[in-house]
Amino acid sequence: MTLLTNVRIHAIGSYLPTHRAANADLLPRFSIDEEFLRTKLGIAARAIKDNSEETSDLCVKAFHDLQTRSGIALSEVQICCVVTQNPDVSIPHTAAIVHQKLGLPRSCMTFDLSQGCAGYVHGLALLTSVMASLDLRSALLFTCDPYSKIINPADKNTALIFGDGATVTHLACNLPGYALVDANFGTEPGSAECLIANGPANEGAVRPTLQMNGTAVLMHATRAVPASISALLAKSGRKLDDVDLFLLHPGSKRVVDLIKKSLKLPDTKVPFEIESYGNTVSSSIPLMLQQPVLEKQHARLVLSGFGVGFSWGSCLIELHN
Amino acid sequence: MTLLTNVRIHAIGSYLPTHRAANADLLPRFSIDEEFLRTKLGIAARAIKDNSEETSDLCVKAFHDLQTRSGIALSEVQICCVVTQNPDVSIPHTAAIVHQKLGLPRSCMTFDLSQGCAGYVHGLALLTSVMASLDLRSALLFTCDPYSKIINPADKNTALIFGDGATVTHLACNLPGYALVDANFGTEPGSAECLIANGPANEGAVRPTLQMNGTAVLMHATRAVPASISALLAKSGRKLDDVDLFLLHPGSKRVVDLIKKSLKLPDTKVPFEIESYGNTVSSSIPLMLQQPVLEKQHARLVLSGFGVGFSWGSCLIELHN
Repeated sequence: MTLLTNVRIHAIGSYLPTHRAANADLLPRFSIDEEFLRTKLGIAARAIKDNSEETSDLCVKAFHDLQTRSGIALSEVQICCVVTQNPDVSIPHTAAIVHQKLGLPRSCMTFDLSQGCAGYVHGLALLTSVMASLDLRSALLFTCDPYSKIINPADKNTALIFGDGATVTHLACNLPGYALVDANFGTEPGSAECLIANGPANEGAVRPTLQMNGTAVLMHATRAVPASISALLAKSGRKLDDVDLFLLHPGSKRVVDLIKKSLKLPDTKVPFEIESYGNTVSSSIPLMLQQPVLEKQHARLVLSGFGVGFSWGSCLIELHN
Repeated sequence: MTLLTNVRIHAIGSYLPTHRAANADLLPRFSIDEEFLRTKLGIAARAIKDNSEETSDLCVKAFHDLQTRSGIALSEVQICCVVTQNPDVSIPHTAAIVHQKLGLPRSCMTFDLSQGCAGYVHGLALLTSVMASLDLRSALLFTCDPYSKIINPADKNTALIFGDGATVTHLACNLPGYALVDANFGTEPGSAECLIANGPANEGAVRPTLQMNGTAVLMHATRAVPASISALLAKSGRKLDDVDLFLLHPGSKRVVDLIKKSLKLPDTKVPFEIESYGNTVSSSIPLMLQQPVLEKQHARLVLSGFGVGFSWGSCLIELHN
């Protein structure tokens, strides 16, 4: 068995569609004012993929970005995992389609992880662990949940929030990068329906549309996430002050502000940078992590995702050069 | 970190719907004779769930079977994973719904794994690894792929093969059972479409139907699986003779016979027991494993799943008392 700390987040690639839908245009329709948009949602525009782009296509574009940042040998990739609840098709898994489109080798494991906004943290924990236990050296962890597929544009609760995007994280053994120290997960009992896509399909569409109980999501998040981060740090023997950056899933500006306030974190340690592209679900945390992974200046970061389930995952990562 | 060998397959529960669809009735329609049915398919009848039963319901019934076999403390379960490509809904993951229906605790991680016929081996490797690395003590690994949701009854290639079912494996630390020694995975390049559910929906249905290139699946399986098992054993320093049972995914009698012949395995070491219920996809291996896990008489087993992707996974497990 390889040590867990030998598996490193070595590089992250990403793709955001260039097309943006501006929220300002929709405010009169939903009777929402600009102040609410700015201070509570924090999302001015949403990245929207082209209709012709499938989930696997966005993943492939994220991989091309990764290639411009970091040398990666395709023939050495041993895991291709796509975190998504919006796959190309139900069968096969999107990872098999990405495997085909990228020309990955025969000796590569492929599977999708269906999880939601905490999916990246789940994926990091699962991939890092299986790499350590099976002595695997190189893995690609994709995230892509293009909610534009399932949003009802007339739904005030969801239409202004979600953007499309994809990321890919290259996990590699013994290269410089961040290693997983520990993780903490949970699921709120009796809350499976607070985010659900099973409503009546849009006219002419076969896909169901997303429905969100925003009040329940906000309540669960502000209760669960600070407790999850506190438990994680206590188990790891670390304090909040030991952590350089907290990458909290940017569900909205309000939820990040409330968690930040609850944990008494300084603004400088909690980035919120989705104004121009929206909440990209499982891609939101790796999008924020891309720059720190490139710069490798911070010693220690906490990542925390939460949403669909209602479930959450927090993890502590540390720099190894 | 816990040692990998401390995580054990402690008990398995299962559920097969009592309703059976007999294949003999369909032979004239497809111009298939009884000899082919008996010697090539090996499936006389298929277990078919009630229309009102969702994937999560089958999982809950498998859990109730587990409870009759083994004491399990619900409050101690730290992972609830459902292996499925046929979830209740696309959002949330079926694991969150099962978590809700069983009343699992807040401190429980929930996610689905979308993989196909090798999904159980993927799930075993991922869950065992993350339990070892994060010091988790108790996990539930569900499998449930009710293909009756997506089969076109007029399709000769798929209508006689698949049955519905669910299983749940209780993974626990330091209890008697089988522990993962090593695993081997792969994905055939350029073969993502050999099993696909994206065809035109049935009239009145919103779900797509399964399409299978049986020739390609058979060719990939008979090439990849013997090589995967050989590589697994070579890496583990074991020979075929050291293994007491080979649980090969029963895609059909023919594919199991061909793999058995290729590896020169004796009939007694390769069970095939799906005549009365069909190919249950991700549930087929844990269904065969249920009795050995109960009896704990075999020292060493190889499990090998293959299909959707086209992908495969083989693992070696050893008894620890």
